[in-house]
Amino acid sequence: MLFLRTCRALAHTGLLQTHRLPPPKRLVPLSACAGALCTRWGSGGGHDSGPRDHGHPSGWRHLLAGILAGGGAVLAYSLLESQAQQAATDVQAPGKSPPLPIYTQEEVAKHHSSAKGVWVTYKGGVYDITEFVSLHPGGDKILLAAGGALEPFWALYAVHNQEHVLEMLSQYKVGELREEDRTLDSSSLDPYAKDPPRHPVLRVNSQKPFNAEPPTEILTDNFITPSAFFFKRNHLPVPQVDPSTYQLKIQGLPGGTVSLSLEDLKSRFPKYIVTATLQCAGNRRSEMNQVKQVKGLNWGIAAISNATWAGPRLRDVLLYAGYKSGGKAQHVHFEGLDKDVTGTSYGASIPLGKALSEEGDVILAYEMNGEDLPADHGFPVRVVVPGIVGARNVKWLDKIVLSEVESSSHWQQNDYKGFSPGTDWDTVDFKSAPAIQELPVQSAITWPAEGAVLDHSLGEVTVKGYAWSGGGREIVRVDVSLDGGKTWQVAKLQGREGEALDLSPPPGRAWAWKLWELSAPLPSGTQELEIICKAVDSSYNVQPDSMAPIWNLRGVLSNAWHRVKVKISEH
Amino acid sequence: MLFLRTCRALAHTGLLQTHRLPPPKRLVPLSACAGALCTRWGSGGGHDSGPRDHGHPSGWRHLLAGILAGGGAVLAYSLLESQAQQAATDVQAPGKSPPLPIYTQEEVAKHHSSAKGVWVTYKGGVYDITEFVSLHPGGDKILLAAGGALEPFWALYAVHNQEHVLEMLSQYKVGELREEDRTLDSSSLDPYAKDPPRHPVLRVNSQKPFNAEPPTEILTDNFITPSAFFFKRNHLPVPQVDPSTYQLKIQGLPGGTVSLSLEDLKSRFPKYIVTATLQCAGNRRSEMNQVKQVKGLNWGIAAISNATWAGPRLRDVLLYAGYKSGGKAQHVHFEGLDKDVTGTSYGASIPLGKALSEEGDVILAYEMNGEDLPADHGFPVRVVVPGIVGARNVKWLDKIVLSEVESSSHWQQNDYKGFSPGTDWDTVDFKSAPAIQELPVQSAITWPAEGAVLDHSLGEVTVKGYAWSGGGREIVRVDVSLDGGKTWQVAKLQGREGEALDLSPPPGRAWAWKLWELSAPLPSGTQELEIICKAVDSSYNVQPDSMAPIWNLRGVLSNAWHRVKVKISEH
Repeated sequence: MLFLRTCRALAHTGLLQTHRLPPPKRLVPLSACAGALCTRWGSGGGHDSGPRDHGHPSGWRHLLAGILAGGGAVLAYSLLESQAQQAATDVQAPGKSPPLPIYTQEEVAKHHSSAKGVWVTYKGGVYDITEFVSLHPGGDKILLAAGGALEPFWALYAVHNQEHVLEMLSQYKVGELREEDRTLDSSSLDPYAKDPPRHPVLRVNSQKPFNAEPPTEILTDNFITPSAFFFKRNHLPVPQVDPSTYQLKIQGLPGGTVSLSLEDLKSRFPKYIVTATLQCAGNRRSEMNQVKQVKGLNWGIAAISNATWAGPRLRDVLLYAGYKSGGKAQHVHFEGLDKDVTGTSYGASIPLGKALSEEGDVILAYEMNGEDLPADHGFPVRVVVPGIVGARNVKWLDKIVLSEVESSSHWQQNDYKGFSPGTDWDTVDFKSAPAIQELPVQSAITWPAEGAVLDHSLGEVTVKGYAWSGGGREIVRVDVSLDGGKTWQVAKLQGREGEALDLSPPPGRAWAWKLWELSAPLPSGTQELEIICKAVDSSYNVQPDSMAPIWNLRGVLSNAWHRVKVKISEH
Repeated sequence: MLFLRTCRALAHTGLLQTHRLPPPKRLVPLSACAGALCTRWGSGGGHDSGPRDHGHPSGWRHLLAGILAGGGAVLAYSLLESQAQQAATDVQAPGKSPPLPIYTQEEVAKHHSSAKGVWVTYKGGVYDITEFVSLHPGGDKILLAAGGALEPFWALYAVHNQEHVLEMLSQYKVGELREEDRTLDSSSLDPYAKDPPRHPVLRVNSQKPFNAEPPTEILTDNFITPSAFFFKRNHLPVPQVDPSTYQLKIQGLPGGTVSLSLEDLKSRFPKYIVTATLQCAGNRRSEMNQVKQVKGLNWGIAAISNATWAGPRLRDVLLYAGYKSGGKAQHVHFEGLDKDVTGTSYGASIPLGKALSEEGDVILAYEMNGEDLPADHGFPVRVVVPGIVGARNVKWLDKIVLSEVESSSHWQQNDYKGFSPGTDWDTVDFKSAPAIQELPVQSAITWPAEGAVLDHSLGEVTVKGYAWSGGGREIVRVDVSLDGGKTWQVAKLQGREGEALDLSPPPGRAWAWKLWELSAPLPSGTQELEIICKAVDSSYNVQPDSMAPIWNLRGVLSNAWHRVKVKISEH
């Protein structure tokens, strides 16, 4: 089963480590694997990007954008078909091949359609993949690579350069590319080559695109997370933006497009400073994975961080750009400058009401923790939507569009949604669930670490962690259990350093997390503690007890009680 | 232990059925029992009114308002003291008492202070309770009854007319009231005598004040709950209000008090119609009681209902009354016309932002389901604060006050708050928790009923219920399990009859519940089903798995998964 082998091998790269294969289906032969792959192309690394309507016939539209990236698996499938045909027709033994013809790039370029044949080049070889294209329901998207080099399409993910993928491709080889046309410099083709340097302490979940979280033990050392430690969640390569020529476009308003330079944003609007916690929808996915595998990056508990952001309010910018109430717009779309090879930008939207509200505190941030935005966090401008899932806080902001409808982007429509534990990739209907905006109440233990050994002679244990809730709902209490949930003690909440906690934010505007701490006597007569935390927010929503009942195929919204088991030394 | 006997006897009345006695304390001798009693006076029936800072020394201020109602227990305590003194001094045998002197009401009335002695009358007897007053830390509040009849203070709760209470009172008898001064008509003294008639189908949790819920099996028959079946939650007697002289007072604005008649409210402002579900903070308390007893009325799952309300927006009324932004007010207080005998009105407050928001939809309702408000629901005017706990939806609205601080009422400060399961009446600090405003996500099964027997031959089961969340967060999914939580199916959500569900309310303004239904094949090979439901709201908050970890001493916020066990017939 080469088909399966391919997907398993991909899974081993770590980029797709949670991918589980359904049985191949004849009717929609490529959906199972290509879908998973296209995801990794389209949204980068798979954190919050599952198969697009995987196994769902109507999902093919959404599959198209990523088909090329799925080339490996698609070719693998195609090869299976070829093998089957060969077996059926009892083919002649291949024997030694005669020397293949040499083609110019110009000749290759003529084969750029199903009618004229679809040729591609790869490392000097010329391949006719016409048959493969015709097999594929989303085939015409593949024509984007037709007549040219595969490298730009495969370079995003090193996974395509694996031996078996190349082996499959070799079946389609029809010639060699003329020496002087082999001008591709593979290093210049790596769209991640210009990604910024990162702090070595980060725990990397995916290099390309870069996704990493700080070590748990330092996460809550500071109320404000230093930018270098702030979790990174990129869907695509980090775009290179020249701040002197940067223009933010605002569209969908009666007066047409308005453009603002970085200097405009800094000089024409009041600067607002907002301290806001951002959390990835996939934070704590690794715990959900322990129930049953889900798709996405295997985040620990640190895909959440807190920073101070500064810039103009989106509200002010929209009013400046000519927004008038009474129109039909209901949503504000954000498009990033980060694009995939098809030219599709990362995109998302939020409800217009949040954008316009004086209490919404949505800003177009050009500063993070008092400095220019770092490249990984959206330089020169990102939107910060406090209280809302990280995915809507679009970085490298290119365009703002007012619209009657939500963003049509993959990440708004077919990802970042929650489903029932009973919903699988065969039954999921992405239209049936709303795009995640506000996140549910969350907390986790950052100290002690799982498996730590506590010194019995100290007589007490100190437990530390964070708690946060979406929608500006303030954390009002954190309960901690040392005995697996039988009894509970109330942790001490901590705000910003040196700030009295009774300086509560206005109702509904608690954008920043609360750090917390509990010191309690070590229970006697036990060698092991199961420490649990659970938080309560100002709407008195609580975290659910366990993960299995909130399990969902994308592994998002993982907010059950956090549990840490530690041992107590005997001496 | 007469002291304990008193409290137990009170508990048996059902008004205090969940009361658990801490050991009597010498330092604050009256707190344990008087606190519980004063509650039942002050807030009526104890639904969401626990001992006021029970066992907490600073709580005495809050205890005062209800001391009189606690007369029975207080007297009991006093009697204990007397008995101890008698034992210590080896008193003479009482023997037959000589005839007691006869006093006029005028003479009794002179004894209205500690200095002049504190006398009260009860059913023709005259009692000198001076000693008792001096024993009591909140004693001067008791002077409200001094020189007059006890009946008006005891009539609110039939519990005071019990034999042992009277027996205790008899110890203090000093004379008889002159025949012609015995003019009190006990029926006219019953402040509940003019309460309206109610539908006999209601399940009554407390008669005086009236608290009742509809039977579960009819609760979700209608998207709009008929007013007669809408749960009733009164803290005090229903006030008699003449609509022709009714005046709503608005205070705390720069221009001084503004008064509006009912006609003003109807004619000067646009009429808004809002469909909103109200839920009591104590809904489903009976399930929490099964974990460990809490204080309050033992509500089932039907202290929640949905109605259409109509009236002017509070926002418009405040602006009309002269509200200008930029002031210091942060809260809006509501005071009802329902008062206890000390003249204290039922009261509560909400954040000003909610009141002023165009999206908050707070109205001063004079109609419920298209008709004048029924007496039990606040005739002629109540405030409806969609998305917010029932307790803030003040009925029989008398006064609106803008203020820098929250309402100081018992129900805002020392009740309707949530605590950790580890917090008990000895450790509770009411200041440590915020007043409940928005409620957490909730759902329950209304069909089949617990213990029902399903007909195996039908082959399938239909499960029905409701789901709702606070803060205008829409219900986006209800999961149902037939096997105790092992597997889950998604229920079908239903909106208003004949209304397409894709006509979703604007974000954050889903004030009405969703009814839901699931039809599924009966699992084979089992004689019993444990049916569970759990809902998810638009912030993707979920209900917790179990009650014990959210148990709290007042039994509020009881929103764990709802479980119903049914049997399957063998034929």
